[in-house]
Amino acid sequence: MGKTIVLAFGGNAIIKPKERGTFPEQMANIQAASGYLVGLIKAGHRLVITHGNGPQVGNLLLKNDLTKDVVPPMPLDVCVSNTQGSLGYGIQQSLGNALRQSGIDLPVVSVVTQVVVDPADPAFQHPTKPIGPFYTREEAERLQREKGYSVREDSGRGWRRVVPSPTPVEIVERVGIRALLAAGCIVIASGGGGVPVVRGRDGNLEGIAAVIDKDVAGRRLASDVGADVFMMLTEVPGVALDFGKPTQRYLPTLTAADARRYLAEGQFPPGSMGPKMEAACQFVEGGGERAVIVSLESALGGLDGTAGTTIVA
Amino acid sequence: MGKTIVLAFGGNAIIKPKERGTFPEQMANIQAASGYLVGLIKAGHRLVITHGNGPQVGNLLLKNDLTKDVVPPMPLDVCVSNTQGSLGYGIQQSLGNALRQSGIDLPVVSVVTQVVVDPADPAFQHPTKPIGPFYTREEAERLQREKGYSVREDSGRGWRRVVPSPTPVEIVERVGIRALLAAGCIVIASGGGGVPVVRGRDGNLEGIAAVIDKDVAGRRLASDVGADVFMMLTEVPGVALDFGKPTQRYLPTLTAADARRYLAEGQFPPGSMGPKMEAACQFVEGGGERAVIVSLESALGGLDGTAGTTIVA
Repeated sequence: MGKTIVLAFGGNAIIKPKERGTFPEQMANIQAASGYLVGLIKAGHRLVITHGNGPQVGNLLLKNDLTKDVVPPMPLDVCVSNTQGSLGYGIQQSLGNALRQSGIDLPVVSVVTQVVVDPADPAFQHPTKPIGPFYTREEAERLQREKGYSVREDSGRGWRRVVPSPTPVEIVERVGIRALLAAGCIVIASGGGGVPVVRGRDGNLEGIAAVIDKDVAGRRLASDVGADVFMMLTEVPGVALDFGKPTQRYLPTLTAADARRYLAEGQFPPGSMGPKMEAACQFVEGGGERAVIVSLESALGGLDGTAGTTIVA
Repeated sequence: MGKTIVLAFGGNAIIKPKERGTFPEQMANIQAASGYLVGLIKAGHRLVITHGNGPQVGNLLLKNDLTKDVVPPMPLDVCVSNTQGSLGYGIQQSLGNALRQSGIDLPVVSVVTQVVVDPADPAFQHPTKPIGPFYTREEAERLQREKGYSVREDSGRGWRRVVPSPTPVEIVERVGIRALLAAGCIVIASGGGGVPVVRGRDGNLEGIAAVIDKDVAGRRLASDVGADVFMMLTEVPGVALDFGKPTQRYLPTLTAADARRYLAEGQFPPGSMGPKMEAACQFVEGGGERAVIVSLESALGGLDGTAGTTIVA
């Protein structure tokens, strides 16, 4: 019996750390990923795919800076929507091709997705997410003065703009996403964590400078479309305790209660496995059957518990 | 009884001729347009919206050029997909807001859209569509030599790259677009005429350097979704004979046969009203109820024949 799966993978899976991000490089990475996704679809599962966009939006922000005297720069929300267009295009073309080569005739459709965040979210008081190019201290201070950017020194490599990373409240286009899924389409949605918007007192939506974690937004999406499984792809085989220590051991399966205990003990770093485990807990606590954290290559095994880490209620 | 309408408007309606194209400028223009679209929706009609992207994709190509030594430039198909993301975002946010203010709760959803063209289309032998920035003759010749670009002197203003403008053969995401429409969504699709792709012998799709006329692609879309009405918005009140001459007269209604006769007489210039009239003829010849060419402000009147030009079989 096929499952409805929301599957999240990182922007770093599309522009790898040592790549410049040329279009052929990105397409080669997407094609490699598509092969594994076809495996899930062949097994009868229905997919909603969401993806990160860190390196891609970084390139657009850098272009903004370098051309600002000639071409009007676009705000962060618009840059996110740009990457939803281009990554959606790349994934739907590549996955469509891979399906066709496997004799499967299923439509793949990308939806531009806005995600509502709360302007009262405490994240807006504590911007933490570095985005875009590196600046000298002087440039960073000028941007802070002239544009009101929050800036921060980043790991000794220079200064960067930091933006808030608020909690997603609502996937605006959820009705459309559900309709596509019901019609048998494979859907790509909420790319880059979604275009961040706030709802004004008049009910109107407006873009805001923020970045929503793609796994946390993916959890919201998974709950909203009534997914059975929320699968987060990683570069590692699964979730480990004592990661990087001699006592390191991978967890094949655990309950949300155990996961919350390990989270409280600080077992999962805030920048990487932490948000994934939090998202996994929220998904199963909200009624989802299970969350899976697994490598792309083992996605299919992640579903039957022979690979990765499964979190259940 | 509500009609299903595919409605096409130009990228020049979003960045107006004397504007630089800042995001607030673009959103103000989209908001103005949204008010008129709400009028059509209030009247009970179902909308699929398609839009041009000339000025927007021009800005991205210029950014590509100016930053090519720092950030990998993206090919034309990817730039088109970028604009589908950002213009889709802008329209769905703005129209969604306008609907909400009118007490209408309907989802607005943008779909990234690939449009198949035929690599044997004669247009590929005769690239005609100027895109991107102006170059000096020397720069243009270098691009021709190094990148294989076709270039042409453009109205005494400098040299530009020209790309083919082939006939759209297939809207790849039509199944998804129809599913959204059936679910009651207002759909934004085939932005910028669609991302141009060709189908290889193995069936695989691949992007190609071309620009598809948004009205011609809109006609294909209108036929594919079974629209009753295909409406093309213009800056003028409708279609005129002897345009710009003392004998100029607007045509309230005409048959496709009459339209084809006027087309053959050269009444409609190839760069502007010509493709619109050709698309209108194809739509009604293919079974569509009527095509309407009208200004944005009179869109509602265009539907009952009190404004613009209506073409019937």
